[in-house]
Amino acid sequence: MKKISELVKERPWVGWALYVVTILVVFGLGVLGSSIIERRQESNQIIQNVKPISDWEPNNEKWGENYPREYETYLSTLDTSFASKHGGSKNIDMLEKYPDLVVLWAGYAFSRDYNQGRGHYYAIRDIRKTLRTDVPQPATCWACKSTDVPRVINQKGAGEFYKSQWKDLGSEIVNPIGCQDCHDPKTMNLRITRPALIEAFERQGKDIKNSTHQEMRSLVCAQCHVEYYFKGKTEKYLTFPWDKGFTVEDMEKYYDEVGHVDFVHALSKTPIVKAQHPDYELFKMGIHNERGVSCAECHMPYKSDGGVKFTDHKIQSPLNNISNSCQVCHRESEDNLRKNVYDRQDKVLELSDLATKSLVKVHIEAKTAWDNGATEEQMKPILKLIRNAQWRWDFVAASHGGSFHAPLECARILGNAVQKSEEARMLLTSVLISLGVKVPVQIPDITTKEKAQIYIGLDMEELKRKKAEFLTNEVPVWDRTAEERGSKVNYDMKNK
Amino acid sequence: MKKISELVKERPWVGWALYVVTILVVFGLGVLGSSIIERRQESNQIIQNVKPISDWEPNNEKWGENYPREYETYLSTLDTSFASKHGGSKNIDMLEKYPDLVVLWAGYAFSRDYNQGRGHYYAIRDIRKTLRTDVPQPATCWACKSTDVPRVINQKGAGEFYKSQWKDLGSEIVNPIGCQDCHDPKTMNLRITRPALIEAFERQGKDIKNSTHQEMRSLVCAQCHVEYYFKGKTEKYLTFPWDKGFTVEDMEKYYDEVGHVDFVHALSKTPIVKAQHPDYELFKMGIHNERGVSCAECHMPYKSDGGVKFTDHKIQSPLNNISNSCQVCHRESEDNLRKNVYDRQDKVLELSDLATKSLVKVHIEAKTAWDNGATEEQMKPILKLIRNAQWRWDFVAASHGGSFHAPLECARILGNAVQKSEEARMLLTSVLISLGVKVPVQIPDITTKEKAQIYIGLDMEELKRKKAEFLTNEVPVWDRTAEERGSKVNYDMKNK
Repeated sequence: MKKISELVKERPWVGWALYVVTILVVFGLGVLGSSIIERRQESNQIIQNVKPISDWEPNNEKWGENYPREYETYLSTLDTSFASKHGGSKNIDMLEKYPDLVVLWAGYAFSRDYNQGRGHYYAIRDIRKTLRTDVPQPATCWACKSTDVPRVINQKGAGEFYKSQWKDLGSEIVNPIGCQDCHDPKTMNLRITRPALIEAFERQGKDIKNSTHQEMRSLVCAQCHVEYYFKGKTEKYLTFPWDKGFTVEDMEKYYDEVGHVDFVHALSKTPIVKAQHPDYELFKMGIHNERGVSCAECHMPYKSDGGVKFTDHKIQSPLNNISNSCQVCHRESEDNLRKNVYDRQDKVLELSDLATKSLVKVHIEAKTAWDNGATEEQMKPILKLIRNAQWRWDFVAASHGGSFHAPLECARILGNAVQKSEEARMLLTSVLISLGVKVPVQIPDITTKEKAQIYIGLDMEELKRKKAEFLTNEVPVWDRTAEERGSKVNYDMKNK
Repeated sequence: MKKISELVKERPWVGWALYVVTILVVFGLGVLGSSIIERRQESNQIIQNVKPISDWEPNNEKWGENYPREYETYLSTLDTSFASKHGGSKNIDMLEKYPDLVVLWAGYAFSRDYNQGRGHYYAIRDIRKTLRTDVPQPATCWACKSTDVPRVINQKGAGEFYKSQWKDLGSEIVNPIGCQDCHDPKTMNLRITRPALIEAFERQGKDIKNSTHQEMRSLVCAQCHVEYYFKGKTEKYLTFPWDKGFTVEDMEKYYDEVGHVDFVHALSKTPIVKAQHPDYELFKMGIHNERGVSCAECHMPYKSDGGVKFTDHKIQSPLNNISNSCQVCHRESEDNLRKNVYDRQDKVLELSDLATKSLVKVHIEAKTAWDNGATEEQMKPILKLIRNAQWRWDFVAASHGGSFHAPLECARILGNAVQKSEEARMLLTSVLISLGVKVPVQIPDITTKEKAQIYIGLDMEELKRKKAEFLTNEVPVWDRTAEERGSKVNYDMKNK
């Protein structure tokens, strides 16, 4: 200090300079400190303001009072403008877009009505409205639709829950997919609430509780976004067919061994296994999973609001949020990244179309063979090939995002589907000729959803009438009962 | 300085400390300067020591005197230990490994003999030894094998070159693929020496001279690693079928329009287009090309030797050099990266196998139909499907590395191949039944290369005898003539 004081004595401007620098530094530190304190306060406010949430609380709004940012973004799963930009409708009618599907699912409720999936908030509204729930369905169909499910399963036990009728639980299950499905209300830690996933792990000798946080950021999604079936004629116990592995062949082996059949095809009489969105399984076979990326990374990226960093609960296609999802790792333009995704999807779709076209023909050709007196023995190897082919095609077609998550695996599966379906057609050719049928068999006009539905014998007017009746007479009773129990029902069933 | 001198007076150790620090810094600067000068010198030596190389100089050794590092690495293309590690042999016999190929190429020289490609240095040795060159071949077959080709084309003109017989140029074409194929001897810039590529660009209205250096690092490879055909019955003019585009469908349209047929299949009588390693085309459809990576980046990565950074001319699979190729961009372990490549290749191979198996059957079934009196009219739509299917299968099968460069595009192509081949089998079923043939047609035993070659009617002993005669009597004359002209012949034809 002696040196500096000497210096200042000799050159007084040095003293002033030191003075000004000190002021600037202190001011800067002040601003920084204030910002840190402010951010701390915001974070603390969140923690201090929380009101306790009771266990199995199904009402998302109540959770929203504690976590307004997460709740607000969750609410925006109501926004379907992205899908409408790319599909031209608020809720794409897949049967209208691809009438061939009506034929492929003939004999199953999906041939009546199948819309593109949309935001979690629509779950209850959409399951009540679909024509698929007019067929007597077990309560198992509710399993992935609502935060009320863990609550009721906790009361009744899973076995009793699954055994009930879908309609019998209409007044209990009223809150759409939400907070409680994935979070522990006390700690807000991620939590598995669906027994099927826990049990699938157990049967493989694994304890799901040993999963890391990063694994949990995918596993909470894997409670529902998986291949599953309803086990047992009356039990309808929700089960994941993972015991032999994750590939399409592994699960086929499982289903064949337990002799599972989802429906007998109305035209070809094939005992079909309907695939149910094996999203997690296909994701696990893709490069993003191999690089340690979780579902949440891309579908729920981090977001900043003032001093708070939180997870965006508007779960959606990352293509609608490229800058926050893809571009965190990929230093490419949005246009390039989008093109890369579409290129992959287009190639997989081309193979899917090949399989679809072939399967439509084979079902109709098989029906013609039956109609002309084919025997069980003649048809057996053919129906096996059709079952195997349709399972493969559906595994890809039913998955959400499979053509992005694991495009090459999808292509591999579809190539095998095409081969099996075409081989079945070849075998059918000789059966048909032996029965005196002229080949090729004429394919009827099934170029629109309506025509295809008439061809497979559906009375759509009657089905729609019944649905309207149900929505007018039964659903309001459900809602009233739920409101009396204290569950507020927020959605307007009249809206699309 | 006054302050420091005062300080030193008060505390003498400060002076010593300053002295030591100065010594260390000056020493460090000295070392750095010396290293820079040394590196400069090494680089300058390269430039100063070069002896002029005459234009069209085919002798790689002469270039090697100027560029010993590049030459030394080029020479190590002789090393086939990587292929042997993964295939079990120094020069994998593909027909032995996949006897089905014999049937698919029945009627074409590839059914006699087809070994896995190996290092550039083997080019002359391998083309002389293969049984494929016993069939009278045009000189066009030399086009990609030697640095003598640009020299002779420069003398004769391309048209005259291609019109000659392969055997007539045996004494002219003796130096294997090397320096001059890609480099200008004066500037060492990359240079296109093959007219076919320049002409393909011209027909698309592009001037290849406008290519960037980075594009040239792929285009020099695209002189040979492409799909091509010999245009004209006698002209045999080397031509790339790119006029309508790069996809398998674009090139098929081109071939169909010009009515090109490489061979008529000996069993099914299908007019086949044989695909010729469309490596560049498939690479262009893959993600590495989309991200601006060139062939050289991975197949000829940079290398350091003392002060000199140069391009590794041991052109090889990047899997044999992961740390210098893949890991420059991908921060993953070697094991992970290798697994990622193998996973892709396995899936594509599975689809390729499906197509192979189906095509083998369809050729044999078609032969059975002909043998039993099928008419041209009955067979026409079937042969069209077989032509289309085999072209697609071969496009992938013949490409080097296509299953890595563009795995999904390969899968798309193969899925279509399977569909077309199986559809042909379905149509054949009704033709066969109409001719009174019992279906399914029995497939003969073609489980080894020898059995398959006997089945398609090849007298392999006779072919091998003729080849041995040729190697003993004619080839030494070629070499003597070449040596008299001043071209040293380095390779020993007795070695494998």
